Amino acid sequence: MTSQEQTAATITTPSDREIHIEREFDAPRDRVFAAFTDPALIPEWWGPRSTTTEVVEMDVRTGGDWRFIAHNSDGTQTGFRGTYREITPPERIVQTFEWDGMPGYVSVETAVLEDLGNDRTKVTTTAIFHTAEERDGMLASGMEGGMNETYARLDELLERLLAD
Amino acid sequence: MTSQEQTAATITTPSDREIHIEREFDAPRDRVFAAFTDPALIPEWWGPRSTTTEVVEMDVRTGGDWRFIAHNSDGTQTGFRGTYREITPPERIVQTFEWDGMPGYVSVETAVLEDLGNDRTKVTTTAIFHTAEERDGMLASGMEGGMNETYARLDELLERLLAD
Repeated sequence: MTSQEQTAATITTPSDREIHIEREFDAPRDRVFAAFTDPALIPEWWGPRSTTTEVVEMDVRTGGDWRFIAHNSDGTQTGFRGTYREITPPERIVQTFEWDGMPGYVSVETAVLEDLGNDRTKVTTTAIFHTAEERDGMLASGMEGGMNETYARLDELLERLLAD
Repeated sequence: MTSQEQTAATITTPSDREIHIEREFDAPRDRVFAAFTDPALIPEWWGPRSTTTEVVEMDVRTGGDWRFIAHNSDGTQTGFRGTYREITPPERIVQTFEWDGMPGYVSVETAVLEDLGNDRTKVTTTAIFHTAEERDGMLASGMEGGMNETYARLDELLERLLAD
């Protein structure tokens, strides 16, 4: 598989309240799972390159809360938070997602990690919103560009971890 | 209007993800709004009679969080929490609702307070869930009985406040 194919995420909208994303990574599943669940690794990849993500809280268990603050290069900051609904290593993470800018607008993200063999992993994320308007707001927020940049950073982190 | 009519709440399900409740109260709208938003008044009516509700946090503004703990007579306790999405006195409150027993399952409750004249107020609450299963779980939880008891307690509080 070429590098071009590897870095392309597929975004679809299976219903008017959902966003479905598929992306393959060139690393074994347990490494990808660790990148999603280890507080020490989140700042290495989470968010666009222009931000530095601080893990304020990350209690990775059912009912545990998480809270990240993304520090922008201009000194401003943006907060995100949620609750872990399910943590099933190394294959499934379900969590809520809320942005400080729209408090009380809560989506649920289900990430499924599939072992493709040959030390490759497919991550399928489905986000569900309470209304079509909230889903459309997320799509219009520039999430696709941010996500592709975030996943490219995750590629780089996984490559660094495998080189160790 | 007889006392019997006054205490009957109407519950309908306008879609497979919603619960719609209408209830009239024999008190002016600003008093009903105060009962919903004053932390000192919540323990006077919120929850079934068998519980004592403690207001742990109640930051009544857009983006503010709330958290209540219901202490049962047998010494056990149950927590609830959420975030205020909109506070528009005296007519509209939008908040999220989450029960500690099912962390990450978040519904959104919109309460609209309508001035019926003659110092009477109609409260219409619409709860929306991410899935039909979550909505059905709430309906099966015994919420209707608990809600009617809670609203009867609110009737009594409003009567006490008007007598002062």
